[in-house]
Amino acid sequence: MYQVRTDLALEAREKFQDANVEVKGVKVTQDKPHGNMIVTKVSIETENGAKIMGKPRGNYITLEAPDMVDGDEDYHREISEELAKILRELIPMEKRELSVLVVGLGNREVTPDALGPRVVDNMMITRHIIRKFGKYAFGLTRNHQISSIVPGVMAQTGMETMEIIKGVLEETKPDYIIAVDALAARSTKRLSRTIQITDTGISPGSGVGNHRHAMNKESMGIPVIAIGIPTVVDAVTIVSDTMSNLVTAMEESKRLENIGESISYLEEAEKNELIRELLSPNLNTMFVTPKDIDESVKRLSYTISEGINMAFFPA
Amino acid sequence: MYQVRTDLALEAREKFQDANVEVKGVKVTQDKPHGNMIVTKVSIETENGAKIMGKPRGNYITLEAPDMVDGDEDYHREISEELAKILRELIPMEKRELSVLVVGLGNREVTPDALGPRVVDNMMITRHIIRKFGKYAFGLTRNHQISSIVPGVMAQTGMETMEIIKGVLEETKPDYIIAVDALAARSTKRLSRTIQITDTGISPGSGVGNHRHAMNKESMGIPVIAIGIPTVVDAVTIVSDTMSNLVTAMEESKRLENIGESISYLEEAEKNELIRELLSPNLNTMFVTPKDIDESVKRLSYTISEGINMAFFPA
Amino acid sequence: MYQVRTDLALEAREKFQDANVEVKGVKVTQDKPHGNMIVTKVSIETENGAKIMGKPRGNYITLEAPDMVDGDEDYHREISEELAKILRELIPMEKRELSVLVVGLGNREVTPDALGPRVVDNMMITRHIIRKFGKYAFGLTRNHQISSIVPGVMAQTGMETMEIIKGVLEETKPDYIIAVDALAARSTKRLSRTIQITDTGISPGSGVGNHRHAMNKESMGIPVIAIGIPTVVDAVTIVSDTMSNLVTAMEESKRLENIGESISYLEEAEKNELIRELLSPNLNTMFVTPKDIDESVKRLSYTISEGINMAFFPA
Amino acid sequence: MYQVRTDLALEAREKFQDANVEVKGVKVTQDKPHGNMIVTKVSIETENGAKIMGKPRGNYITLEAPDMVDGDEDYHREISEELAKILRELIPMEKRELSVLVVGLGNREVTPDALGPRVVDNMMITRHIIRKFGKYAFGLTRNHQISSIVPGVMAQTGMETMEIIKGVLEETKPDYIIAVDALAARSTKRLSRTIQITDTGISPGSGVGNHRHAMNKESMGIPVIAIGIPTVVDAVTIVSDTMSNLVTAMEESKRLENIGESISYLEEAEKNELIRELLSPNLNTMFVTPKDIDESVKRLSYTISEGINMAFFPA
Repeated sequence: MYQVRTDLALEAREKFQDANVEVKGVKVTQDKPHGNMIVTKVSIETENGAKIMGKPRGNYITLEAPDMVDGDEDYHREISEELAKILRELIPMEKRELSVLVVGLGNREVTPDALGPRVVDNMMITRHIIRKFGKYAFGLTRNHQISSIVPGVMAQTGMETMEIIKGVLEETKPDYIIAVDALAARSTKRLSRTIQITDTGISPGSGVGNHRHAMNKESMGIPVIAIGIPTVVDAVTIVSDTMSNLVTAMEESKRLENIGESISYLEEAEKNELIRELLSPNLNTMFVTPKDIDESVKRLSYTISEGINMAFFPA
Repeated sequence: MYQVRTDLALEAREKFQDANVEVKGVKVTQDKPHGNMIVTKVSIETENGAKIMGKPRGNYITLEAPDMVDGDEDYHREISEELAKILRELIPMEKRELSVLVVGLGNREVTPDALGPRVVDNMMITRHIIRKFGKYAFGLTRNHQISSIVPGVMAQTGMETMEIIKGVLEETKPDYIIAVDALAARSTKRLSRTIQITDTGISPGSGVGNHRHAMNKESMGIPVIAIGIPTVVDAVTIVSDTMSNLVTAMEESKRLENIGESISYLEEAEKNELIRELLSPNLNTMFVTPKDIDESVKRLSYTISEGINMAFFPA
Repeated sequence: MYQVRTDLALEAREKFQDANVEVKGVKVTQDKPHGNMIVTKVSIETENGAKIMGKPRGNYITLEAPDMVDGDEDYHREISEELAKILRELIPMEKRELSVLVVGLGNREVTPDALGPRVVDNMMITRHIIRKFGKYAFGLTRNHQISSIVPGVMAQTGMETMEIIKGVLEETKPDYIIAVDALAARSTKRLSRTIQITDTGISPGSGVGNHRHAMNKESMGIPVIAIGIPTVVDAVTIVSDTMSNLVTAMEESKRLENIGESISYLEEAEKNELIRELLSPNLNTMFVTPKDIDESVKRLSYTISEGINMAFFPA
Repeated sequence: MYQVRTDLALEAREKFQDANVEVKGVKVTQDKPHGNMIVTKVSIETENGAKIMGKPRGNYITLEAPDMVDGDEDYHREISEELAKILRELIPMEKRELSVLVVGLGNREVTPDALGPRVVDNMMITRHIIRKFGKYAFGLTRNHQISSIVPGVMAQTGMETMEIIKGVLEETKPDYIIAVDALAARSTKRLSRTIQITDTGISPGSGVGNHRHAMNKESMGIPVIAIGIPTVVDAVTIVSDTMSNLVTAMEESKRLENIGESISYLEEAEKNELIRELLSPNLNTMFVTPKDIDESVKRLSYTISEGINMAFFPA
């Protein structure tokens, strides 16, 4: 049908769950809920699974907490701690001194796309200090070299984000990339309430502004951990989802029995064409976002930056 | 039916035009197009007209230009000049020395709501200089006293915007208010392409964030000219409009003849209920905005501030 | 001599201390140092003391901590807690429900002057919620109504800051004002390392941009607590202080005995005239600020906003 | 003596002029003043000249205009045009299609250091469009590929600015770099009133934040044109200059005849030591900047970005 756009593996999985379809090659496990948090791991284990899910093979860990965006004195330290724990599982760092480049993807000037740049604003940056003063600069445990960059978006730079990052890698040779980005969800319910951490990097076409090509171990030569929070839903998704529901409702409704019958004679293709015809063409250039997105992005960027800081520099 | 939300009198008028309904008490005149601009004046002349249109009595001048938002060396000086001309018609300023308070409504931290604050950033502010150095401070013609305020939104201040403005009026006693605000349109086609200037001030419930009560001659005691550009469409509006189109298409479609017949038996009320049921409740807290809204707001805020500057300080 | 410009009562006091002059009507007490903090209270008790000190009668509490500006996971929670304690002593709030207006003075666009606006950005604002949902909105203890405003500076608004604040008071009638502002110190050593809290409000001519008249109980009708951190030294102060040291050094230096002798014949007035002659006139429009002022203002604004939040909403 | 810090070749030259010293290998020519502008060209032609001037060989064109920073409807289009003319002389662009990377050096978060990033904010970026739609995308004349980057400063990124730029060059291979940066002057009179354009690139130790190594044809492999405006004076410079004047005044003053005599016995070295002793050590980490630096940087960044835009895309 029309392309359902979601950057969350969890939502891609739900689509099949809703249809009672089992997807081979995809494993889902869930931790026992603790605090207000639900941690789910979707592992795409085979190429077949990847094809069906529309996402590359690898692990997608989702941290859901309904109150994540609410005011809180510590910017939800318990969530930061859980994020740090997940990062330490994905990045083996015991007895090693890592060099890590944190990339803040997105456009600082568009509120729902500013998550990546704002996370970088709050990072503890250590590379230049350790290179100047040696690894004991911060005491024994704080010896990971953290660097960061906010590459901007193509309309601002005239360059592909990947060109910029690759150039930086060549000069500075980090061991890992952590890429932070605002995501697109399928459902407005997920917005500002879910963190996705994945070892598959960033895929083409994902993210709020679609501003990049693949950024993964294959293209970059080093592992890429991506951290994202959905802040928008594509306008096309939200409209076509609701219309699809309308058609389904008509089919099922007793009150609309006759209509339902008639619609059920329509081919699936005809139904889709009907819906597509009614979608305004410039909906493609629009997104849907909550009215309080400024507060959400501000709070969530602290939660994430603190999580990354804690992962590398535990108290 | 469901409330169609638009801040543009032009769009409110079109609703009836589409339905071939003549609205008594509302007069529409259009200037001969010049340059790429179309200037339309909707005058709501009677209380009846106001009730039907859902907007207070007064004049609503709309300046439409399809390329308004495109890059241009002068930030579209021809549009600024047209805006200045319209302002000089609404505010008689010959042989008078006016004191004018420009109010930048909206939330600076939310890109599509930042139009008002950004216009104020570029204003030529003269009140403090004229009060200190006298009316010849800028030479003979530049003697209007312009002051400005960005009151912020209730979530930031804990106060109604109107409380703040009223307090400022009491202390500084200007002759006019010019209130600049981002608007909500009904159609995505209008976004960033239309300026509405009105002598009716700001109405309750309008604007991107709904952040204020009426701000007009009645509540403020002095005339309030409002200047706005639509930067968002309510998510509810966009979804329900498309669904409404779907229902209409079904009724009309030959291909769907049977369905159409069945639907045509439905009461109008039943159709609306069907649609309302399918709307996700948190759509109310969402808006739809273009992905390049950062560039648009930046450019348009220059076009407007230059227009206001030119109105009071012609070269 | 030339006017020594400092907003810190502590520094004004030191001038006399250095000269071994006892100032009548001024009492200085110091808490036992705890943590890294030194808390000093300068009480100006008589009109005579006020005249000599060049500051209004009242209490000036100074919280000094050399590491205040350094990175710290909690933005120095211990300092925020001490600030909260001091505020609770100055504002009796037991068994009362207060309405408090927090005013962020200064210019958001000039880094060292942005402290006030940035503190307000991080405040917990409750007035609109309590007025809408009642005093139990946040549970029993959180019933103080906090509102805030960032009035901007005269070059931006064309209005005196005091005009704006007075207007807002008239409409919203709070019980207290807390005014936060960046201060000017005399010595670069104090910059970003000292918080001054005073019950005397804001005095004319103080602050980074000199952007206001008195804001105190007399002018506002309600008590005004001012919180400030020095972020700049006047360029004139720093230059004339060093030159003054040079002259003193010459007088004292054995190596320069002859010069010293000659200078000691000069009248005080002649020395001052000599120095004044050499000061470039546009130094008046300049200030001195640390190169890392961006980080300092960011961190310190969190420390202060958390302190105010804790004072009214203890955990 | 103490190092006089200035990024302006013009000021470095004046030092010798004041002392009536002719500097071999340095040629100074001045255009006939037109409008309010004075354009001076300092050419350092020999290694000897470079050594004495403390600046690399090459051309330094200075555009001075006393009203450059004042309000003006067009952000001083005449200055932008002059800048465009100078750029077209330094970058031969007839019958060629150039790829140019504009680098906005400095720290966006520190007002006087934000010039570079803000210039880039207003640039017309074309590279991505021409690469996608071909060279006729903008019509015949607009075929230069402009890209840009704001690399940030080391405290934000943990990386040398040069590492980032070099990496980007490797990936995108432009023909020219235009580096825009805020400069340090020796005299407060020059601040916000002078544009320096040079074909020697950026030298180590220059700029507001000292945030970079050499960025020139030798290190980058392609020509680097640097454009800068002084926005700060080092605090050490301003203090030691004034003190130096004081000593000179004492030597010359008739009123202080005896002192003058005594001082004239001092060795130059002793005088300098005396001055250095009195300089506060943390002055090194301070700069002096005008109080209205926000407005200046805002206006001047438009003047420069328009100049660059006009150079490549003449109307």
